[in-house]
Amino acid sequence: MALSRRNFTKMLGVAAAGAVVAPRMAMGKPAGFNINKKGGKAKMKLTFKPYPLEMQHTFTVAEYSRNSTPDVLTQIEFDGAVGYGEASMPPYLGESIATATAFLKKVNLEQFPDPFRIDDILTYVDSIAVGNPAAKASIDIALHDLLGKLVNQPLYKLWGLNPNNTPYTDFTIGIDKPEVVRAKTEEAIKMKQHLKVLKVKLGRGNDQEMIDTVRSVTNLPLYVDVNQGWKDKSKALDMIYWLKEKGVVFVEQPMPKDQIDDMAWLTEYSPLPTMADEAFQRLPDIVDKIKGVYSGINIKLMKSTGLYEAQKMITVARALDMKVMVGCMTETSCGVSAVAQLSPLVDWGDMDGNLLIKNDPFTGMKVVDGKVTLTDLPGIGIKKI
Amino acid sequence: MALSRRNFTKMLGVAAAGAVVAPRMAMGKPAGFNINKKGGKAKMKLTFKPYPLEMQHTFTVAEYSRNSTPDVLTQIEFDGAVGYGEASMPPYLGESIATATAFLKKVNLEQFPDPFRIDDILTYVDSIAVGNPAAKASIDIALHDLLGKLVNQPLYKLWGLNPNNTPYTDFTIGIDKPEVVRAKTEEAIKMKQHLKVLKVKLGRGNDQEMIDTVRSVTNLPLYVDVNQGWKDKSKALDMIYWLKEKGVVFVEQPMPKDQIDDMAWLTEYSPLPTMADEAFQRLPDIVDKIKGVYSGINIKLMKSTGLYEAQKMITVARALDMKVMVGCMTETSCGVSAVAQLSPLVDWGDMDGNLLIKNDPFTGMKVVDGKVTLTDLPGIGIKKI
Repeated sequence: MALSRRNFTKMLGVAAAGAVVAPRMAMGKPAGFNINKKGGKAKMKLTFKPYPLEMQHTFTVAEYSRNSTPDVLTQIEFDGAVGYGEASMPPYLGESIATATAFLKKVNLEQFPDPFRIDDILTYVDSIAVGNPAAKASIDIALHDLLGKLVNQPLYKLWGLNPNNTPYTDFTIGIDKPEVVRAKTEEAIKMKQHLKVLKVKLGRGNDQEMIDTVRSVTNLPLYVDVNQGWKDKSKALDMIYWLKEKGVVFVEQPMPKDQIDDMAWLTEYSPLPTMADEAFQRLPDIVDKIKGVYSGINIKLMKSTGLYEAQKMITVARALDMKVMVGCMTETSCGVSAVAQLSPLVDWGDMDGNLLIKNDPFTGMKVVDGKVTLTDLPGIGIKKI
Repeated sequence: MALSRRNFTKMLGVAAAGAVVAPRMAMGKPAGFNINKKGGKAKMKLTFKPYPLEMQHTFTVAEYSRNSTPDVLTQIEFDGAVGYGEASMPPYLGESIATATAFLKKVNLEQFPDPFRIDDILTYVDSIAVGNPAAKASIDIALHDLLGKLVNQPLYKLWGLNPNNTPYTDFTIGIDKPEVVRAKTEEAIKMKQHLKVLKVKLGRGNDQEMIDTVRSVTNLPLYVDVNQGWKDKSKALDMIYWLKEKGVVFVEQPMPKDQIDDMAWLTEYSPLPTMADEAFQRLPDIVDKIKGVYSGINIKLMKSTGLYEAQKMITVARALDMKVMVGCMTETSCGVSAVAQLSPLVDWGDMDGNLLIKNDPFTGMKVVDGKVTLTDLPGIGIKKI
């Protein structure tokens, strides 16, 4: 009989919570602030609103184009502090303002004593329905922001991280005609962020033209994202050798996510790291789907359901000797600043989501001389504009 | 060229830290207290002293007996707060008061701006010399205690854990003659902690006598620790079947740590979980040595170099579908209370180290009705007596 702790508790007929709270509370003075100003128990209050993101340019990848991104902003209030969160939902991932709103309506945070019960709260939120990773992330981010504000510290400090170890971020150049690509690349280079690396989308049959066009403008290192666009592993390998000669650093999601054997072969022979994106979402996928198939993972909060699981993903990926990058969707400074708190732990950053929109309601993480630069503000480090 | 972030920085000739600190500091008001009362920059100050632990009973396992345990207590002071740590060093693990003192003398924490740089500080401490896990843990524990005190929160809250999810702890019955075992078991049952589980040491040839003697006193569930005492895998499997009938929950370190193939065979056929203890120490060991060989791991801070790595071990073990328990050496309430902060994440607890000594200089975690019960005090939750 494999007797787990919870079964053991059950077997003994002990009501764990009830049996312990009383003596525990009696042992030391409680540490602050879960009594609100009215003298009663503070309760967490969740609110949310749709906030479609308006994009600076039409965004084109291998599969589709679009001009705006559905987004929902969340807030969790507790004892006078407010934590901000966000669900960004590019349509191809299957979530929408309607699904996120329906999900968030089901979330009852008032059953929890305080925002410090992140493990319990997120287990509950995850159990409400399968899927909905962006909607779940919007709770996780707001909860972490709130926790940091309640103890008046940025999350990177609570996690013991050095803010100087953040990565450079790329800026993404979408697939288009050479003259448009040239203009966009020139514009990117002239941006005040002084970018040190660009990411080029490939996979629509004009790969060499795309790279040659970008290279006619700049010698910056390049990341490449194929978005599953290559179907033939031998051609893919030839292309990666060519890309290496052109100063490409890694290749993201080169082949369709279900061509697993082809992908494992490609990673084995590739002279550049292969990074999984569409091929995985949640923590268990790293062991089940990615290990032995890709060189590393691109973690995005909108896939991982937020920071709590993203942090674990980094730990597991490192234990399995994988490369780690963090990415984002088209997002406000809320989502990007949240993942930036973790970014001192990663190899590469793809965190230009907030540079792509016109209606960012927050300021937070900034790109300074190409590098992700954290604020000293508590929580995820953002302010409402 | 696989261009990692750090190589990339180097390639570009950018001094990452220098280039970024100035704009970052200008972006928001710094969040508190790394300016000390004198108005200058506070520095961390590490002090330590030998503190041999006097044991209540002679402690006997498969390999040796002893009456005291070498221990060093550490303190890290910063800006008026003091974090406490401990290195407990049972002689068979190779550390001593002399080696810990020599190690701690080399540690210079004044080079770091504040205790929140845990990742950098522990990377530095780990790089000072190989080995020395207990000495390293004494820094890690004091640093975490300090961090919690600086933000006035217990670590379990900063980690998002529910204090009601702590495990029961066992109490260990050492190997001895039946009359002594019977007396010790009776004494354990009568202890005011109302234990709900006992751990029985086996592996010296009188296994059935040990279990039968304990069973003549109590029907409590039992954990079993063989401390590498069984050399024959078939006899080991027979014994585990017998132990299962006797109400044993799991078997810890049944065989010598270097009998890896035998151990993998035993785990495959064992009707009870097999838990690794002596077979591993650090995080990489879980993937390299334990996966596929044992059902789970017994994490001890004095092996893992402290809480930072222990936390990652739990994440990696769970991702690999392993059982997790936390243990301790003979320790004061400092070490035991530190690991107790993590214990809401584990299946089983072996946290009786402070119950075994006569000269505990701290109060902290208590065993209440057999269950690990955390205080609401900040950091690791202890007070000096």
